[in-house]
Formats: sequence, C-alpha cells, structure tokens
Amino acid sequence: MSVTTAKGFEASGVAAGLKSTGAPDVALVVNRGPSAAAAAVFTSNRSKANPVIWSQQVVADGVVRAVVLNSGGANCFTGSFGFQTTHLTAEAVGDALGVSAGDVVVCSTGLIGTGDQVFRDRVISGSRDAAAALDDGGGNDAATAILTTDSHAKQAVVERDGWSIGGMAKGAGMLAPGLATMLVVLTTDADVPSDLLDRALREATCVTFDRLDSDGCMSTNDTVVLLASAASGITPPQLEFTAAVTELCSQLATLLQQDAEGSSHDIDIEVTGAHSETDAVEVGRSIARNNLFKAAVFGNDPNWGRVLAAIGTTTAEFDPYNVDVSMNGVRVCSEGAPDRPIDEVDLSPRRLHVLVGLNVGAATATIRTNDLTHDYVHENSAYSS
Amino acid sequence: MSVTTAKGFEASGVAAGLKSTGAPDVALVVNRGPSAAAAAVFTSNRSKANPVIWSQQVVADGVVRAVVLNSGGANCFTGSFGFQTTHLTAEAVGDALGVSAGDVVVCSTGLIGTGDQVFRDRVISGSRDAAAALDDGGGNDAATAILTTDSHAKQAVVERDGWSIGGMAKGAGMLAPGLATMLVVLTTDADVPSDLLDRALREATCVTFDRLDSDGCMSTNDTVVLLASAASGITPPQLEFTAAVTELCSQLATLLQQDAEGSSHDIDIEVTGAHSETDAVEVGRSIARNNLFKAAVFGNDPNWGRVLAAIGTTTAEFDPYNVDVSMNGVRVCSEGAPDRPIDEVDLSPRRLHVLVGLNVGAATATIRTNDLTHDYVHENSAYSS
Repeated sequence: MSVTTAKGFEASGVAAGLKSTGAPDVALVVNRGPSAAAAAVFTSNRSKANPVIWSQQVVADGVVRAVVLNSGGANCFTGSFGFQTTHLTAEAVGDALGVSAGDVVVCSTGLIGTGDQVFRDRVISGSRDAAAALDDGGGNDAATAILTTDSHAKQAVVERDGWSIGGMAKGAGMLAPGLATMLVVLTTDADVPSDLLDRALREATCVTFDRLDSDGCMSTNDTVVLLASAASGITPPQLEFTAAVTELCSQLATLLQQDAEGSSHDIDIEVTGAHSETDAVEVGRSIARNNLFKAAVFGNDPNWGRVLAAIGTTTAEFDPYNVDVSMNGVRVCSEGAPDRPIDEVDLSPRRLHVLVGLNVGAATATIRTNDLTHDYVHENSAYSS
Repeated sequence: MSVTTAKGFEASGVAAGLKSTGAPDVALVVNRGPSAAAAAVFTSNRSKANPVIWSQQVVADGVVRAVVLNSGGANCFTGSFGFQTTHLTAEAVGDALGVSAGDVVVCSTGLIGTGDQVFRDRVISGSRDAAAALDDGGGNDAATAILTTDSHAKQAVVERDGWSIGGMAKGAGMLAPGLATMLVVLTTDADVPSDLLDRALREATCVTFDRLDSDGCMSTNDTVVLLASAASGITPPQLEFTAAVTELCSQLATLLQQDAEGSSHDIDIEVTGAHSETDAVEVGRSIARNNLFKAAVFGNDPNWGRVLAAIGTTTAEFDPYNVDVSMNGVRVCSEGAPDRPIDEVDLSPRRLHVLVGLNVGAATATIRTNDLTHDYVHENSAYSS
C-alpha cells in the first residue's frame, strides 16, 4: 500500500529538524532496478521552485535512480544559494547511493522564501540519514515525512497480474495543479521504457490531478514522478498500463481532495453537454474557483445562481437560458430558471455532486474542489506566523 | 453630496416590502432636463440579469429620462416572467412620469433566481410610490434604498466651475466588475451629448470600477449609468469632463472597497515596470484573486511568496528572478529573493499598499481588493438562507 509495494524499490523517512515539531521531514525513494526508467510532470506555474528547475533537467534523459523529498521549506525564491542547496542535496544522495547526482530528483514543500544555511545543513544531513535508513518496507515512513498541513499520509496501490503500481502524495493547500499536483511519487515494477512512462503519466495526470482545483492557487513546487524498476519482468500493454496509472492518480487525487485544508465538503462538478472537453473544464474550473459558491456550500446552501454567474464569466459555448443545474440529484435549475425548491437538496453529506448541463454538445469533464470555510481562512492566515 | 446635487435631477427611495426587514428597497432617479443625454456600461458576465438585458436597449439611443432601482431581488434567471416584470416596472415609471418606458433604465440587486408574482407586484407598486415621492433633495433616500449587504450608503460629488457631477453606488459582495460594477448612478448638470458621455464614462470606469476586484466574483447585474441634464448650461472641455467622471468613479470605488463584505483590509496592488498596461492589470488581478495571499493579509502576514506564486500563473512578461515586492514601503523581496525581514512590515492599518516591480517595461496599473476573512465566509455562507 505504498511506494515500496512494487518490487525493486526502497524508501525511508527521517526527522532532520526542518519542522519545528520534530516530525519526520526528509523522505527518500530509491529504484534498485534493473531498469531506472522514469517520467515526471511539473507545475506549470512560471514561478518555479529551485528543486523543480533542477529536477526538470534530471528527468530529461528518462533515467531517475532516486527521489529525495523534504517538507518544512519550499526552497523557492531563495536565490542562487537555494539552487545550490538543491544541487548539494542531490550530490549527498548520489554519494550515499553510489549513483550520479544527475539521476536524483529533488522535491521540496513548505513556506516559499525559506532556505538559509541552517535549512541547507539540515536537508543535506537528513538526506544522508535517509539513505542509511532505506528499507524495502519504508514506504509508509516516506509518505509520512513529506506531509505539511496534511492531516494524514496519502498512499494508494493498483495491483495487476504479476505487476503493480503504488504511490504517495502530499498536498492540502495551494492545491490547483497546472500540469501536475503537489508532491507525488509513483513506483511500478512493470518493465516500461521512459517514453511510454511519460505518455502514460501525462494522460493520467491530465484527467486526475489536473482536474483537482481545491483553492485555485497553483503551487510553485508541484511534482509528480513515476519510477519503473522492471523488477517484475512484465511489460503490460500500454493501454492497460495507462489505465492503471490513471486509476492510481485518481485515488490519490481523491485523498488530496478529502484532506484539503479546512474543508467541510468535497465538491465534484460534473459538466455535461459541452461543446468541447476544453469548454467543460473551463466551466467546471470557473465554478470551482467561485468563492461565493464555495462559501454557500459551506453554509449548506445550494445556491445555483452563483453557479450560473460563474459560468457567465467563461468563454465556453452556452446559452444562459438553456442551462440545467442539479445538486445531489435534485434539479434546482432548468433552462436558466428555478426548478425544484432548493430545500429539497441535502447538503449535509461531505460529498456534493453538482451536475451542470450546458446542452450544446456531448463533451464532459469533472472538476473536483472543496468548499470555502472558516477553517480554510484560519489555517491560511496563520500558516507562516 | 448625492445624485441630486447636480441641477435638473430629482430622486426618492421608498420601502416596497421586498426586504424582509422593511427597509427602503426601491429607488428612483429622474432627469428633468433640459437634456436627457445618457450613457451606461453593464456587466460583461454572459449570464445577464433581465434588467441588464432591458436597460442595454434603453440606453442604445443615448436618451434616458429615469432610472428605477430595486434591492431585495436580482431578477436574474427568472425566465420570461422575470423579463416581463422588468418591462412592466419601466412602464409603471413611464406612466407616472409621463415619459416613454423605453427611456427608463431598470436596475435590480439581490438574490439570483428570485422574481415571483409577489416580487413583481411589490416592485411595481413601489415604483409608483417612488414617483410620487420624488424630491430635488431625495438623493440620500435613493442611495439608502439600493443597499443590500452594504453597511452604509455610498455617495460622492465632484464640483467644478458652474457645474457638478454626483453619484451613488451599492456593492459589497460579488464585487469584481467586468466592464462595470454593481449599481451606480451618476448625474451631472453639464451639457454633454450622449456620445461624449459614453466616451468619458468608459474611460473613467476602465481605470476605476474595472480595477476593483474584491472577491473575484463577477455579478450578473452590474450597471453604471451616467445622466446629464444640461441644467447648468455649461459644456466643459471633454478632458476636464472625463477627469471629473474618473475622479467621481474613483471615490465611489474606494467607498465600495472599504465596505466589502467581511473585509478587514483594503489592499491596493500597484504593479509597476510592466511590459504593457494589460500585463500590469493581469498580474494585479491574479494577486487580488489569490485566496492564500488574501487569507495571509487577514492574518497580518506579509506573505510575499504567495504574491510571486500568483504572478507565475499569468501570461504577463516577467522574470521570476527579477521581481521586487514591497508592502507598506518595506521591500520584502528583491530580484525574487528575500530582502528585508517580514516582521518590519506593519499590517495593522486597514490599508495595505503592495508594490510589485516587474522590471521589464514602463507600464503600471493598480488593482484594489480586500482580504479573505472569517466574516466574508460567514456572510456568504448565510446570505440566502
């Protein structure tokens, strides 16, 4: 049930003193092979953290032997000193494992702008400790060490005939991935070359993490890495492999949504009848980012007027007077006018299904978000102080 | 200090029973001439309320004799019945004043989806009462009758040599005008034809209301109307007139910002050194819509990392490692790295000035927003229940 479920992987998680609580904060995942094929997607935020800039180069040749991750500091906007810290971290891991630093992906998460000499010293010594603690059952320790405001470790596994794929994820705020999500490491013992890993990973993240939009705020550090050890000796058909990666990413995205900062509702916005999938995604995202709608859901108020007001700000093809909206199965708006009374909608469950019918085409997409709560404001007004 | 300050105007505000509190909820502003020149801008939300659809036609010929406004119901997404209600309201006002219904602008604000027979009856009888209550000192009554969640009436006047221009505004939430803002009526006794009114109004709103982005949520009902009576007999130079309209709009926009729902800070985001004004506006708006940054300001946390993360989601020309950020005069970030310690920033005043230097050009723009607070979530989770 972790990144060490697939054969050929070891992992660890240690406390390096980056978190003031003394909780574990450095994780390491190592691919022992025989293959070291890998693919990754990164944030599309143009303000990228140092570890993202580094890791984009590492993964370019399709070979990754280790991923070192720290919580307790994003190492973003920390100047050339911060980039050097990332480089030195990869070198420390490479030295300890006897591999090239150029095959070590680095991921960081925490407050932007933190990354001084103390941070550097602790990350590097923590990375060495993590290398010494590697274990083929260490997946759970690694998943714990990457958490920040997450309330629990997030792991999932998809088992197939003779091979498997597992993963861990962290992320609770700044959760609106562009081409990726927060920190995610996926491992498989299938024998898949890096170009096919890349294709499968992009197809999977495009319909899973990319459609998670908890708070509209895109991170500077988002990274999803997929490592393949080939230790199973099995090469699954590409379609089957992509489906498995997609299923795993979807499970992890659900875990992220359910643990989003301060949230009291998981809102799945299913847009149907769109002219194109692009239109469906734009409409879903616009609703997912509408603070008034999100606050209404927090107040158990099925405020469909705010849904329509959000749709009106998009460039999607639609007629305001031919839009239908249902919430948890109750059609509250038909053809842009009130339908069933809103008090028929039960918003007490954590999950809310919003079904939007644009009635102009056949394309669909589902965007997953959360409500806007007192606790979200509280957590994010107090985070760095 | 109101829409009746300029010569040639009468106004009134009455209670028609639309608000459960019994507070005034129907306002009327009438231009007695000699000129009836007018211009207006409306929401760019593609989901438009019935009064907007009606009023866009009314103002097309540049002649408006009266503006009737109701709070207590947006009359948006209320079907053809709702459009008919708007039409009947204009006819009631036209009959009472002896003018054509086609010269009566209608504005509504309140909950989307409300507009039944009871609403219709009360709006129409309230409009007749308002016509009977018209007074050349009635501006304050009108400004009070258009409020919803606003805590107080918002009015301003700009006086010039021999002529003046005054206005009233309402708006506290769903406050991110596209090409307009919430409900605003401006009156002048200058003698200006409708095409020049239109040009002045568009130039003014473009740099005032359009740059107010309190909560990123664009309304379906935004309307700004400018009426000119020519009662002063003076035709000011166009540049002077536009400057006066802009100054008035800016004052009203400030009043809206200061009364935004639940806010504890007014945040002015001044973007400098941009390649173009469009870039500067996009960057400012992206920061203004970043919930994490807005929550941090609520917590008196000068979290500049969230500012840079927001800039990275734009298409504007910039180099993440050549961006400067100051807050209330303290430069916390230089060239994408930490500068002064953040505890030097005093966020205790209500106003926060965020200065962003993109260092790639000479264009600037200022976007005005508010912080994200517990009270915002509270007000908007309880609004329609």
